[in-house]
Amino acid sequence: MEEVELSPPHPHEIRIKVFSSSLCRSDISAWESQASSAIFPRIFGHEASGIVESIGEGVTEFREGDHVLTVFTGECRTCRQCTSGKSNVCQVLGLERRGVMHSDQKTRFSIKGKPVFHYCAVSSFSEYTVVHSGCAVKVSPNAPLEKICLLSCGVAAGLGAAWNVAAVSEGSTVVIFGLGTVGLSVAQGARLKGASRIIGVDTNPDKCEKASDNNLCVPVFDVILLNFLSQVIKRITDGGADYSFECIGDTGMITTALQSCCDGWGLTVTLGVPKVKPEMSAHYGLLLTGRTLKGTIFGGWKPKSDLPSLVDMYMNKEIEVDKFITHDLPFEDINTAFSLMREGKCLRCVIHMPR
Amino acid sequence: MEEVELSPPHPHEIRIKVFSSSLCRSDISAWESQASSAIFPRIFGHEASGIVESIGEGVTEFREGDHVLTVFTGECRTCRQCTSGKSNVCQVLGLERRGVMHSDQKTRFSIKGKPVFHYCAVSSFSEYTVVHSGCAVKVSPNAPLEKICLLSCGVAAGLGAAWNVAAVSEGSTVVIFGLGTVGLSVAQGARLKGASRIIGVDTNPDKCEKASDNNLCVPVFDVILLNFLSQVIKRITDGGADYSFECIGDTGMITTALQSCCDGWGLTVTLGVPKVKPEMSAHYGLLLTGRTLKGTIFGGWKPKSDLPSLVDMYMNKEIEVDKFITHDLPFEDINTAFSLMREGKCLRCVIHMPR
Repeated sequence: MEEVELSPPHPHEIRIKVFSSSLCRSDISAWESQASSAIFPRIFGHEASGIVESIGEGVTEFREGDHVLTVFTGECRTCRQCTSGKSNVCQVLGLERRGVMHSDQKTRFSIKGKPVFHYCAVSSFSEYTVVHSGCAVKVSPNAPLEKICLLSCGVAAGLGAAWNVAAVSEGSTVVIFGLGTVGLSVAQGARLKGASRIIGVDTNPDKCEKASDNNLCVPVFDVILLNFLSQVIKRITDGGADYSFECIGDTGMITTALQSCCDGWGLTVTLGVPKVKPEMSAHYGLLLTGRTLKGTIFGGWKPKSDLPSLVDMYMNKEIEVDKFITHDLPFEDINTAFSLMREGKCLRCVIHMPR
Repeated sequence: MEEVELSPPHPHEIRIKVFSSSLCRSDISAWESQASSAIFPRIFGHEASGIVESIGEGVTEFREGDHVLTVFTGECRTCRQCTSGKSNVCQVLGLERRGVMHSDQKTRFSIKGKPVFHYCAVSSFSEYTVVHSGCAVKVSPNAPLEKICLLSCGVAAGLGAAWNVAAVSEGSTVVIFGLGTVGLSVAQGARLKGASRIIGVDTNPDKCEKASDNNLCVPVFDVILLNFLSQVIKRITDGGADYSFECIGDTGMITTALQSCCDGWGLTVTLGVPKVKPEMSAHYGLLLTGRTLKGTIFGGWKPKSDLPSLVDMYMNKEIEVDKFITHDLPFEDINTAFSLMREGKCLRCVIHMPR
């Protein structure tokens, strides 16, 4: 815990009083990764809700007091990608990897004049943060900020992978690798679209149990089976599932995910951010026989266009969010959240900022 | 050239007098491959036309004298794949890799009682051959057999990749790696769907010239450029093409093909049968940003259901086939065809059987 200075919002930026921020696995992956360059000191956190505290010059979309979700991949609404109607990969405010703000490649945080870097242009593990106005979404003031922060990343990413990216069809079979919040949200999305069979795979028996408790999928966690995973899945799905989802962040698992799909129309969607090896590989024969491998960020949602409706769906009890929250922690206990996540003992820990 | 014995057709098989058979690159790849197991002696050839000579027990679809195209991937019309309406990867008569017939795992060819293996359940480099009745398609008797053999594999595969697999849209940009018959057929398919820009890549200047002559695409063949290929393509397509097609059979090129596509909706279709390394690999970041990698066999065509219409399109001059025939050779000169193909000096050599 350190005191940092935060500048006022620059033009087209807003300063947000963070309300709640849940810990996502990719905060930890980015922290521990030896694959990407070390950008420190840095404030992590990107799955968050908050209240607009002040607005920068030229901001017309927000005013002080607005309730918002932060978004780690922005939406400028003017670039080739945003205007295509086919993409959520904004060219102007897309995923920021260098720890700086989009507009001037500098930080807004500092300690004694020395820059403190951002994470994904959000940095919500802080009482206040500054984000580009394209990286926040106004939501209904009636929605509980302490819950809907999960829609800022994990739950939305999983639902979107099932709905937007795979377009899971009724009666289909689905295999999900990794039963964290993202994987279970894929399961929820698939279930809501009428999938007839949802098989969840995880090496952590606690996660499998949680998945069973929530009745989201049939978990497979017998470690002996894991060695023959794709064969087992092919047998129980009569030749392979219609869809498989890689939600672990293990590029080595992509081959297994492809093998678990059926010939002809099997679709593998990869969502995970790799913790170690960034290269994925697969035997060409898996593709030759008609499989498709599709990647996605944030489940294909355009944040500004789509997130408010997801919040409304939650308010109307059409989608489940609360059950993914296993722990509520005050900000001062944030390190507990990191430990729980690293030990595989939680789904989402929501960290609540001082009110 | 050797005398072989050929048994009469077994139940559900037909014996065909081969009329013409063009040489496809995958005949050579299978012959030279060190990746797959050596199955010799073997009769290659799978892109062929012919006339039914006799029919086996239970065959009701064909009669003596019917004009047919052979197909290397069959269609049983009853399995999960065939009845799905989503796939051409027949579970019963799919790609045969062991050099035998589908029904009894034995050969119909022999020399002095010793088996001579089939290739892709077709083996058309022979005056007569026996195929499963699901591995031949009856076509109009008015269609010129010496031309339409190209629709049995290469030309159809390329057209189908553009139409069925990628569904190339009007005004889109397309990059094609490999300007053989398959790649140029993708170009034809893309052009017929109104692609605004078709860029062809090949290291062989003769093939690029041929592509230019046929006005099928804008070829790129500057070998200096090839080192920066994806950057060059990204620049000239303003961020990446909508579609890219790997038609070389070089799994290493799949990364370049993915990199040459745009974020958000870039689609890479892989058609080539690898000559060397069967594993493809790519950085997960290419997928995370919304790209899709899709494989296909025979351009997604269901042979029995779809090939007769393609032949009709050719007869109506809606698609081009003749321009891909660079050489006509009598059967006794078949080795010339192999040399021309290996030296990159032909598109299709059509080998004509003694009449």
